[in-house]
Amino acid sequence: MISPSVDNLVAQLTRLPGIGTRTAQRLAFHILRASGDEAAALSAAIAEVKERVRFCSECGNLTEDETCAICLDARRDHTVICVVEQPVDVVSLERTAEYRGLYHVLGGALSPLDGVDPGDLRIDELIRRVESNGVAEVVLATNPNMTGEAKAAYLADRLRGRVRVTRLASGLPVGGDLEYADEVTLGRALSGRREI
Amino acid sequence: MISPSVDNLVAQLTRLPGIGTRTAQRLAFHILRASGDEAAALSAAIAEVKERVRFCSECGNLTEDETCAICLDARRDHTVICVVEQPVDVVSLERTAEYRGLYHVLGGALSPLDGVDPGDLRIDELIRRVESNGVAEVVLATNPNMTGEAKAAYLADRLRGRVRVTRLASGLPVGGDLEYADEVTLGRALSGRREI
Repeated sequence: MISPSVDNLVAQLTRLPGIGTRTAQRLAFHILRASGDEAAALSAAIAEVKERVRFCSECGNLTEDETCAICLDARRDHTVICVVEQPVDVVSLERTAEYRGLYHVLGGALSPLDGVDPGDLRIDELIRRVESNGVAEVVLATNPNMTGEAKAAYLADRLRGRVRVTRLASGLPVGGDLEYADEVTLGRALSGRREI
Repeated sequence: MISPSVDNLVAQLTRLPGIGTRTAQRLAFHILRASGDEAAALSAAIAEVKERVRFCSECGNLTEDETCAICLDARRDHTVICVVEQPVDVVSLERTAEYRGLYHVLGGALSPLDGVDPGDLRIDELIRRVESNGVAEVVLATNPNMTGEAKAAYLADRLRGRVRVTRLASGLPVGGDLEYADEVTLGRALSGRREI
């Protein structure tokens, strides 16, 4: 609309999640107004992250080294492994400061609908870690949606008898209202009720 | 949190308007998951836009050439100039398909509060264009907020007697409800009422 390079930037930005044409345009105009240094820093940061970041050979989390900082941390509990779908889930769990064990990132795959089968997930690596490293518990922290539950069920089957397998609790979000909870969540909160 | 290069990318993305830490993180993880080609294309698009795009020597709009496509278009009405604050405003006005004249982008400056005085705006260039090119009308399309109104008043003063000066109509947004209109807008809609 303005010039081929601006149109191209808007098109590239639109490929990012949650960025529509209007937002992409606003971002593009910001980049155009920004200093050359700021734009260069953003451009370089994108290229750099793809060059430097790779998967931890142990847990599949993102790292710039062979093994990630969490796997290398001797102060963490190496007998517990928390299984998550994506590296971003590790960030969410770390933010709680409640968990001191290790992680296992299933990775890459998003959904069976997209033609992803268990072979694409890092499941054999998980079994190997459980069997060889004295792991006492595997916490299944896949998403509480259809594909996440399917993965959890499949993993529970594979791990049964080898190790204690647990699943993150489902229930009412803290700060939420009963009135606005959907019936499935409320049902889970009921069936998972605990003594106080 | 994950690695220096991811942290740096999140920091760079957070500098964009409307992008908080959570969104920046989501975008960073998308870039990490994306193909190398997609990330390279985005990185290159940002660098390229800063290299290629410059201001039109005539109107101050963005262009990749000496003069922008609108100024060069002989089918447009060269006797009308619409004055806007930012290049993005040209895009908004072009989208209406109602305007067939030329533009003049005041540019750069955001607000007198940020220490911008009229000298930083491309006002002398506007006067020169009006005087030398047989311009019959200048449409003031600065934003209908405090600084935009101030700019419009200042420009109207400077242009008085040289050319017909008009201002975009203020009033109710189409599709809006009277009930939800603020009193200033509703007052403008009243004082600007037209015969039907």
